[in-house]
Amino acid sequence: MKVLILAAGRSQRAKPIEDKNFLSFCGKTLIERQLEELSKAGFKDFLVVGGAHNKEHLTKLLRPFKAKIFEQKNLNEGMAGAVLAVEKAVKNDDLFIVSGNDVVDQKAYELMKKAAKETGDSFLLAYKVKGYFPGGYLKIKGNRINGICEKPEKGKEPSTFINLVLHVHKNPKELFEALKKVSTARDDRYECALDKLMKIRIFKPVKYEGFWQPVKYPWHVLDLQKHYLNTLKRKISPTAQIAKTAIIKGEVVIADGAKIFDHAVVQGPAYIGKNVVIGNNALVRESIIGDNSVVGFGSEIARSFIGEDCWFHTNYVGDSILGENCSFGAGAVCANLRLDEKEIACGGVPSGRNKLGPILGNNIRIGVQTSIMPGIKIGSNTQITSGLTIAEDISEGKFVYGETNLKIKENKAILDKKTREKMKGKL
Amino acid sequence: MKVLILAAGRSQRAKPIEDKNFLSFCGKTLIERQLEELSKAGFKDFLVVGGAHNKEHLTKLLRPFKAKIFEQKNLNEGMAGAVLAVEKAVKNDDLFIVSGNDVVDQKAYELMKKAAKETGDSFLLAYKVKGYFPGGYLKIKGNRINGICEKPEKGKEPSTFINLVLHVHKNPKELFEALKKVSTARDDRYECALDKLMKIRIFKPVKYEGFWQPVKYPWHVLDLQKHYLNTLKRKISPTAQIAKTAIIKGEVVIADGAKIFDHAVVQGPAYIGKNVVIGNNALVRESIIGDNSVVGFGSEIARSFIGEDCWFHTNYVGDSILGENCSFGAGAVCANLRLDEKEIACGGVPSGRNKLGPILGNNIRIGVQTSIMPGIKIGSNTQITSGLTIAEDISEGKFVYGETNLKIKENKAILDKKTREKMKGKL
Amino acid sequence: MKVLILAAGRSQRAKPIEDKNFLSFCGKTLIERQLEELSKAGFKDFLVVGGAHNKEHLTKLLRPFKAKIFEQKNLNEGMAGAVLAVEKAVKNDDLFIVSGNDVVDQKAYELMKKAAKETGDSFLLAYKVKGYFPGGYLKIKGNRINGICEKPEKGKEPSTFINLVLHVHKNPKELFEALKKVSTARDDRYECALDKLMKIRIFKPVKYEGFWQPVKYPWHVLDLQKHYLNTLKRKISPTAQIAKTAIIKGEVVIADGAKIFDHAVVQGPAYIGKNVVIGNNALVRESIIGDNSVVGFGSEIARSFIGEDCWFHTNYVGDSILGENCSFGAGAVCANLRLDEKEIACGGVPSGRNKLGPILGNNIRIGVQTSIMPGIKIGSNTQITSGLTIAEDISEGKFVYGETNLKIKENKAILDKKTREKMKGKL
Repeated sequence: MKVLILAAGRSQRAKPIEDKNFLSFCGKTLIERQLEELSKAGFKDFLVVGGAHNKEHLTKLLRPFKAKIFEQKNLNEGMAGAVLAVEKAVKNDDLFIVSGNDVVDQKAYELMKKAAKETGDSFLLAYKVKGYFPGGYLKIKGNRINGICEKPEKGKEPSTFINLVLHVHKNPKELFEALKKVSTARDDRYECALDKLMKIRIFKPVKYEGFWQPVKYPWHVLDLQKHYLNTLKRKISPTAQIAKTAIIKGEVVIADGAKIFDHAVVQGPAYIGKNVVIGNNALVRESIIGDNSVVGFGSEIARSFIGEDCWFHTNYVGDSILGENCSFGAGAVCANLRLDEKEIACGGVPSGRNKLGPILGNNIRIGVQTSIMPGIKIGSNTQITSGLTIAEDISEGKFVYGETNLKIKENKAILDKKTREKMKGKL
Repeated sequence: MKVLILAAGRSQRAKPIEDKNFLSFCGKTLIERQLEELSKAGFKDFLVVGGAHNKEHLTKLLRPFKAKIFEQKNLNEGMAGAVLAVEKAVKNDDLFIVSGNDVVDQKAYELMKKAAKETGDSFLLAYKVKGYFPGGYLKIKGNRINGICEKPEKGKEPSTFINLVLHVHKNPKELFEALKKVSTARDDRYECALDKLMKIRIFKPVKYEGFWQPVKYPWHVLDLQKHYLNTLKRKISPTAQIAKTAIIKGEVVIADGAKIFDHAVVQGPAYIGKNVVIGNNALVRESIIGDNSVVGFGSEIARSFIGEDCWFHTNYVGDSILGENCSFGAGAVCANLRLDEKEIACGGVPSGRNKLGPILGNNIRIGVQTSIMPGIKIGSNTQITSGLTIAEDISEGKFVYGETNLKIKENKAILDKKTREKMKGKL
Repeated sequence: MKVLILAAGRSQRAKPIEDKNFLSFCGKTLIERQLEELSKAGFKDFLVVGGAHNKEHLTKLLRPFKAKIFEQKNLNEGMAGAVLAVEKAVKNDDLFIVSGNDVVDQKAYELMKKAAKETGDSFLLAYKVKGYFPGGYLKIKGNRINGICEKPEKGKEPSTFINLVLHVHKNPKELFEALKKVSTARDDRYECALDKLMKIRIFKPVKYEGFWQPVKYPWHVLDLQKHYLNTLKRKISPTAQIAKTAIIKGEVVIADGAKIFDHAVVQGPAYIGKNVVIGNNALVRESIIGDNSVVGFGSEIARSFIGEDCWFHTNYVGDSILGENCSFGAGAVCANLRLDEKEIACGGVPSGRNKLGPILGNNIRIGVQTSIMPGIKIGSNTQITSGLTIAEDISEGKFVYGETNLKIKENKAILDKKTREKMKGKL
């Protein structure tokens, strides 16, 4: 069986996160973790579809899995385009299509593998939801799927199972042909093709109730991080340097070359990447700190995802997501709670969270004393100057500054040492 | 002898402090402390006059003292109204009227008790002042009080003794009648009644030079706090959790369930309430922290009174007074010193202090990086957004925000990792 | 041989630094250090020329060196005026003129001493530069100096040697006469006199390649500080009080009466002056902290020169220079890095540094949460209020404030404890 992993998408919904595949969770990127889990479930033959923007990086990264990397030329063709990109590499093999951005337990992969051995033509992972979910519900009759109902009205769901993109097709050629018959203008081309095939072929649900975490909206990164952090086992590299007075509590992984300075605290679960510096009197808790980052003096990073090469100095960063190469001036703050403690929206979408900090892309500079409000998105390659309160999303490649309106008059107070001492003495 | 404790007042001068009676000093409210001291001095029969606003709370709180709680219906009638509220409960007993907001040594109560055994009709505590005080001076001739002179001009004081509301009346019925004869429109009705009685009855001064602290203006809370803190003896609850690297110095009381995290410092005298959390690398000194409050990472609370359920995060709070349920965003600051280090006014009244922070009521949210200037009053149920400098009093129930005037242009600097490394190398 | 030390200058280029002579490096002022090095090189007879503004202080400070202090009446007459100020005190002695603001190794003084014993009339220290330097180049032919070329065009330098003010004149009377012949209107009067003398007398270069650090622009203080710090040997006064949990690393000098509180870190090389307090959880690294200063809780001082009687509280101060008696409110920041990490200019002059904080004079008050941008100069006797971003130089004696434009409306959110707990529970 060949496994097709969808890794081409440049999701607008996840912006300013640049490429979800390469988000590094505890030292391993999401795409590596996905292939690793599939490998553990016994899959070996990986076809990974990327785009021009990430093909090279995917190739390099996935070499250990002997994955074949394909380029989807036209990313507008969505999932259908991705499937067709591997057409020539798939002969009479079974084809297992797996979303790169839906994280499930290894068990789900095993269930798919086992199911595919049974009679039937196609097998779709049917995820049992506990409440209403705004996704594609499966119409199931007996042990057969008759259709997919996209975002039904609440109360009108055809089942309690939704469609996750873990699909086995035993006759992929038929799928390719079906895809080609649907207009490329449709953005639900793959679903249309399935719909037609369902009428003539046997589609079976593979029911699953275990862990599932999509990475669709930025804050999903925090959910997924929590999942991965919870699997950590304490491990401190022998090349890490940890000051005697530093406190390392709980399940903490400290990678090679990291330095933890005096009076710092790392409260697990937490992952401290390679060559990271945790400065004096800093605090990191329930967070991932990417390689080469510096959490300087007196900073707190709480429940946040921090990319590589980031730099902090006396900052508070809570429930936030930062890409690579972001720098914060002294005193800058990532706020993570509304004053009224209500649910935080991000890009206009309710996040379901009352704690959520800002989301930053890559290559960002934040000036001293600047605050970024909860759920605010800051696009890559952006500079924001000092002393500002950022309460609106900032798009990519911007320089943000404020008005300076200093008023200056003559100082009439006497400020010398003598006056000061006199004042201290009496008043 | 029956002791009448005046606890109905809703002082405007103490605003935004909501009810002085319930200010909790080291785990006990002011009103409890007053009754406790009176009990120690041998008094047993307590009549406490409250208002509709606090009657219930008083009843609950003062049960251990078997105090009878009375409601003064019309709070505009002031002290006279309060005295008349207990008329029916007082028969031929001596009546000892005690202000709830004047704190004196137990000795003062004992002096009153002893004096009342001597001949005479009424006995007033005569507090010997060292300098001029803008209050009611006693006109004393021999061992008799002839009158009270309200706020005499400086230099024209009739004696060096002022009238504190610790008054024993051996014939309270006569007092009630005298009060009824004065117009309810007068706000000095009680004083007028005394004035008349003095002409026909023997009023004696009970001279006292010991500790006296009124709670009239907000900053008096800090003076009183200092008094109570200075009586503390080190005591750490066995249910408190104190990290090994935390430093607890001097006379510190840590109540049940409190947690002191690594590298925190508590410098006595200080009182840490029940279930309080003192976060990593935080500092508390010479302060009271009310139950359930959280002094988060990297915060300093110095010489401040903090109510219950307050929450801090990388804040500086100096010489400040906070009610219940106040939250501070990361980096917010309570400033406590003028730039010119001169005396700080509060609500237009000179405080006699050159160190005084802001005064906050209950249920207040302060955004990240917001600063509140020395002596500023913030009314209850108020939100103040981020990044502001608050240099004016804010009344109750307000939402305070600033202008956001971001200017945004294209970023022209190259911010990628390579450029950064190049810069680091040379320049 | 008499040594004339030039200490009268009130350099505008070094502003807001008030008097470079009195900058105290590790417990000793620059002028003392200069005389000390000269003493070590065997010189004994010091004539120090100051002005009305510093004569008294020089007299007091240099008593141990038995230096004679002279006052230059007209400071506009520059170096020529300074030299002429000692005319009457110099008879037939050799005269060694030394700049107070050029720091060289003791070896340079020894070279001058040795050279003066050889044949020739005047001897000028010839400092070998490695690249172009915008100063006075020596025209050298064989072993003789023929002239000085002020700031030649790059590529047109007459030699690789520049003129430093370490000049021995064997016939000072001739120099005095030559000086008198040049118009007092010229600001290169001394150089003109030399130029004339060179034509009739033998001027020899004394070649030198060792350490040289001028103190011309403010940031030179940081270069010089680095030089002096690198010579420190760990030494902790027996009268210093150092908490058990404080960390003192590397070559650190802690002077008498200093106190280092719990969880503070001092990272050498660093000099902690007399009676300095380093507060809880504070960090000082590669810095000089002047006597009586207080580095309060949670502050970081990095690579900075801090004068006497300064006061910090939860501040970040990086690569900055502060005079005496400067105070910072909580959260105020001295920024030391541009967002684009490019070279920082100071007073319009490129500093050659990408890390440089602000430069402050004496007697300055900075409000809470105020940020001062990299390379900004703040003149003495100035107050800057809270919450501002200072991105322009501020001249002496100013009071700087901002616009307060609070908007206030009714708060509609319910902020009480119950609502909060409800929110925490679910959402």
